[in-house]
Amino acid sequence: MAEFRYRFNVNWVDTDALSVVHFSNYFRYFEKTEEAFYASTGLDHRKESERHSVAFPRVDVRCSYEFPCRFGDEVEVSLKLADIRDKAVNLNFEVTNVTGGRLSARGAVTLVCVDTGKWKAVSIPPELREVYSKLS
Amino acid sequence: MAEFRYRFNVNWVDTDALSVVHFSNYFRYFEKTEEAFYASTGLDHRKESERHSVAFPRVDVRCSYEFPCRFGDEVEVSLKLADIRDKAVNLNFEVTNVTGGRLSARGAVTLVCVDTGKWKAVSIPPELREVYSKLS
Amino acid sequence: MAEFRYRFNVNWVDTDALSVVHFSNYFRYFEKTEEAFYASTGLDHRKESERHSVAFPRVDVRCSYEFPCRFGDEVEVSLKLADIRDKAVNLNFEVTNVTGGRLSARGAVTLVCVDTGKWKAVSIPPELREVYSKLS
Amino acid sequence: MAEFRYRFNVNWVDTDALSVVHFSNYFRYFEKTEEAFYASTGLDHRKESERHSVAFPRVDVRCSYEFPCRFGDEVEVSLKLADIRDKAVNLNFEVTNVTGGRLSARGAVTLVCVDTGKWKAVSIPPELREVYSKLS
Repeated sequence: MAEFRYRFNVNWVDTDALSVVHFSNYFRYFEKTEEAFYASTGLDHRKESERHSVAFPRVDVRCSYEFPCRFGDEVEVSLKLADIRDKAVNLNFEVTNVTGGRLSARGAVTLVCVDTGKWKAVSIPPELREVYSKLS
Repeated sequence: MAEFRYRFNVNWVDTDALSVVHFSNYFRYFEKTEEAFYASTGLDHRKESERHSVAFPRVDVRCSYEFPCRFGDEVEVSLKLADIRDKAVNLNFEVTNVTGGRLSARGAVTLVCVDTGKWKAVSIPPELREVYSKLS
Repeated sequence: MAEFRYRFNVNWVDTDALSVVHFSNYFRYFEKTEEAFYASTGLDHRKESERHSVAFPRVDVRCSYEFPCRFGDEVEVSLKLADIRDKAVNLNFEVTNVTGGRLSARGAVTLVCVDTGKWKAVSIPPELREVYSKLS
Repeated sequence: MAEFRYRFNVNWVDTDALSVVHFSNYFRYFEKTEEAFYASTGLDHRKESERHSVAFPRVDVRCSYEFPCRFGDEVEVSLKLADIRDKAVNLNFEVTNVTGGRLSARGAVTLVCVDTGKWKAVSIPPELREVYSKLS
């Protein structure tokens, strides 16, 4: 799998008074897609993380917006692995407004693997590296 | 203090594509008011709850809506104690749209005091009863 | 169709610091289910409402909570028509935590059909009555 | 005013199951601070924007995270003008966890002034340039 794709429709609560999806919700769409990707791999990312006493907080996120999404629009988010290092993962996202036939936004998220006890960066456990490697 | 009042302005993110505050956000306004009330009492409700190994999950909530709130509107939420029993508290809320000069919504929330170990209802600790009694 | 059922998994952002779904998010789950129901009927509820210059604001909502949902849990929401009158609809919801094998919450929502010009209650247009009648 | 500062406490609903503020909520904190800044200037940013038929969608946002915020923590957001051009504004934000005595996050947001009719970039109206210039 070179990339993971996830489709859903924009919910009413995601919109704001300009009738478009609020910009902060794109980060929720990224996360939702990441969760759907983990679920698709068959490995329980969260349980595996807990077993290794690690968590993956986001340390750097960004998004640029090109075309709005509106209530009910079908959206497809694609997730790609940009880069994986010893202790960190870079993920790239693209949100396509399928209904509008346009790229809506591009984003990137950096996750760091931290020990949940000391909250220090540690090496990504092999089983979880494996999960991310399915994206390349 | 017969009631606690809390004022704030409607944030953009609270609105939806009808240009009004999304109905679910009224429950967030209730909770925010409850938190401001606890902060105003000088007792740290959360620390005190943790010290007693209790939490106060909501078991029943409701809200009826009369007049919308829009972006930037000044809102005042009033919090009153409807009833306090051995293991539960009933709180009443009214949201006034100050800018519009109209009552916006009325709501009620029932909290039950539970032991965080067994997740069973237990008596409200005296220090926390004291907090709620300030509302009557 | 006696009822409409909708399944999804709890997203991370839906949880709070007690590791459970925040109570206000159940109303978002209800709405999401309602939207999925409309989409399933083949009639575009929003476009049809706009064509008739009506909207369906919620005037009364409630929810009671029995068992929490946690991150990743599979949830099934069932939607039933409680009652339909000339200008209003009552919908009932049940949220089952499929993963936990328990009923999580029960809720009810009253929608009123309003003219979007005068914001006054008006009769539900026949095409939209038809949509709700699929639930009985 | 070289910068605008805004203080508030973390609400329960802002937290997630790691007991920290969800990363997407920092963007909501930025926006809330921007709104408080506009309110502080005495000019109604939204009305003025509507009078000129312009809006200020975000086209590029980013945030890097250094230290978490937890429920009840006092937070101070500082807003600075990074740059103002003919049709765009760059704002910088810093979130300090006052309770924890640490910088929590740094972010930046680019707003573009668009004509609400054609949704094309246009020059920022003088009255609104004036508002941003108060930040330098």
